[in-house]
Amino acid sequence: MHERRGFLKGLFGLGTAAWSLPLVGGGLATGTAAAQTPPPPPGKKLGYALVGLGSLSEHQIAPALASKTKHCKLAGLVSGNPDKAKAWAQKYGLPERSIYSYDNFDRIKDNPDIDIVYVVLPNSMHAEFTIRAAKAGKHVLCEKPMAVSVKECDQMIAACKAAKVQLAIGYRLHFEPNNLEMVRLAREKTFGRVKVIEAAAGFPIGDPRQWRLDKKLSGGGSLLDIGIYALQAARYIAGEEPINVSARWSRTDPVKFKPGVEESVLFTLEFPSGILANCASSYGCNLNRFRASAEHGWFEVQPALNYEGIKGRSRSQQGPKDWDLPVVDHFAAEMDDFAECVASGKPTRVPGEEGRRDQRIMAAIYQSAASGKTIAL
Amino acid sequence: MHERRGFLKGLFGLGTAAWSLPLVGGGLATGTAAAQTPPPPPGKKLGYALVGLGSLSEHQIAPALASKTKHCKLAGLVSGNPDKAKAWAQKYGLPERSIYSYDNFDRIKDNPDIDIVYVVLPNSMHAEFTIRAAKAGKHVLCEKPMAVSVKECDQMIAACKAAKVQLAIGYRLHFEPNNLEMVRLAREKTFGRVKVIEAAAGFPIGDPRQWRLDKKLSGGGSLLDIGIYALQAARYIAGEEPINVSARWSRTDPVKFKPGVEESVLFTLEFPSGILANCASSYGCNLNRFRASAEHGWFEVQPALNYEGIKGRSRSQQGPKDWDLPVVDHFAAEMDDFAECVASGKPTRVPGEEGRRDQRIMAAIYQSAASGKTIAL
Repeated sequence: MHERRGFLKGLFGLGTAAWSLPLVGGGLATGTAAAQTPPPPPGKKLGYALVGLGSLSEHQIAPALASKTKHCKLAGLVSGNPDKAKAWAQKYGLPERSIYSYDNFDRIKDNPDIDIVYVVLPNSMHAEFTIRAAKAGKHVLCEKPMAVSVKECDQMIAACKAAKVQLAIGYRLHFEPNNLEMVRLAREKTFGRVKVIEAAAGFPIGDPRQWRLDKKLSGGGSLLDIGIYALQAARYIAGEEPINVSARWSRTDPVKFKPGVEESVLFTLEFPSGILANCASSYGCNLNRFRASAEHGWFEVQPALNYEGIKGRSRSQQGPKDWDLPVVDHFAAEMDDFAECVASGKPTRVPGEEGRRDQRIMAAIYQSAASGKTIAL
Repeated sequence: MHERRGFLKGLFGLGTAAWSLPLVGGGLATGTAAAQTPPPPPGKKLGYALVGLGSLSEHQIAPALASKTKHCKLAGLVSGNPDKAKAWAQKYGLPERSIYSYDNFDRIKDNPDIDIVYVVLPNSMHAEFTIRAAKAGKHVLCEKPMAVSVKECDQMIAACKAAKVQLAIGYRLHFEPNNLEMVRLAREKTFGRVKVIEAAAGFPIGDPRQWRLDKKLSGGGSLLDIGIYALQAARYIAGEEPINVSARWSRTDPVKFKPGVEESVLFTLEFPSGILANCASSYGCNLNRFRASAEHGWFEVQPALNYEGIKGRSRSQQGPKDWDLPVVDHFAAEMDDFAECVASGKPTRVPGEEGRRDQRIMAAIYQSAASGKTIAL
């Protein structure tokens, strides 16, 4: 395990450098302000409170905090369902004082066991709980998408700056070795310059009553929820910010997909160096692959965004190669990294500004699909 | 070999039905007029004359006619290079009277050994030689792209109609078992409805002095030459005609790629049923895959468009499956099929009207890329 950490640190260094260099705008990362807050004692495991005890918290995040993280642990719960919260507290051995409802959540400010609030709520609730957590003096890790509008992103960033807390977005693939290898191969031009990127993310959505299909809670359709992975991949593989976007969308089932909740949306990003990226997002079918095609070969991850089982490969003039990279729990890596950032004052590689960039592009994607025009970014 | 033919006939039947059903507009196939010409004696191998003795003729078409076709053979040569033509004639045992220059080509009308002219010239010469061949009373197989403008396509179709000869376009993948399997799986909804198609075709182009990079000869860039495979695939997998297209293009090397000769162009097609297709074309990198993502699985060919070694596979809830379909020489299958069409008066599945549809869409792709607007089709 020690070796794995070492390996990850190596990749972290690369990842941070590679992704921070080309990113445009947004000023300083939120993290730089947070350096002023007193760091926790060295060696202390930081405490995370989970806001929202849905499937992601239950099956990924809580198990990671229970047995996989090195620098943090589960320290609090925030739920709208008191019975569920009680059962969780029992399971994870949490005291009653660390269980909160959405109403009394703000009292979390008086709980010294909780350093970081992880917002795992439906999209439209991200802004409110991020801002409330910041006001309570807690650092915030907020699931993707950051919010449902750029304006909300601005408010979240401002609230965290004002409170001198760090804000990170739950972009777990920034901590996944195969995705990081994609970035390395692109940045080092191992196969020459990247010319075309293809990134697709989707799944056939089930229950039509779920929050993802309710625009009030989701803020949109497949793009905000799953297509954002394709947008992220295009951006981190290109290592540049897109200069424009063109998009088309589709709803083949008007009962399941109401207006404003697109089933599929395809979008093309143009980057300053001439890289073009074809991206796809869908709630109608499985899409799960990021590929970069370069002058002398291609490299891809497929599956690209599963919680487990991500596989990368490349093909050059020397032939095909299956990668054999360490298997990492994305959520454990993401939470440990942020805990280290909070502890050391080092800025996170996935700050609110990064979430805001995606939000701005996603708004342009919707604008392009609705207008039939390429939107300059 | 007999079994293979039987298998192919089965696929041909399917392919014809599947592709002719959804295709819109264009009136009757050119082939229907040709039914009035007297068929050659049964059992006779029809004679092909090759116009243009470049790499494709040398390495694919002539060898196929020499040893792989059942219903046709090499019977004539048309070349701008007398020495080359003489060497070819010697190699393939052709009489001197069946060798033509571009100037005296029209005398081909008096040569009873030649039934079909296969135009394998640079794109901008397709229209002229198709029309001259038709006027000489010969049926015409013309390489893709059919021409460099829709107007030329109209002239070619009109010339063949007037001469009561058939016109086919060299869409060899309509005769390739893995590509036909893609069509079958889409049409039969084996994995449910197709939602998203991804089709990409490209290669890193070499010698900057070649005709493909000279707009006067090529009529455009990668799209007309290689991206047309992606456009074709999107259309035959969808089984519908697109209602609009959005495109972006790129030239990263202005020395190699002059204005009007795009290096890469990405385009999104929207189909009436809601299927969306992301397509990519490039002279900057290898792209070689067609994939359909459906409700309950996906299916793909990769490599998709090589002369040899095309491989298909699918993945459903039952797991992955590598296809094991017969290996076919695309050019032999294409030329044999057209010979049979000519002999029987049956319309070809790849008529001039099919080439014209692509030409119209390619013009819209360029228009969209230039204007930044989605173009209705």
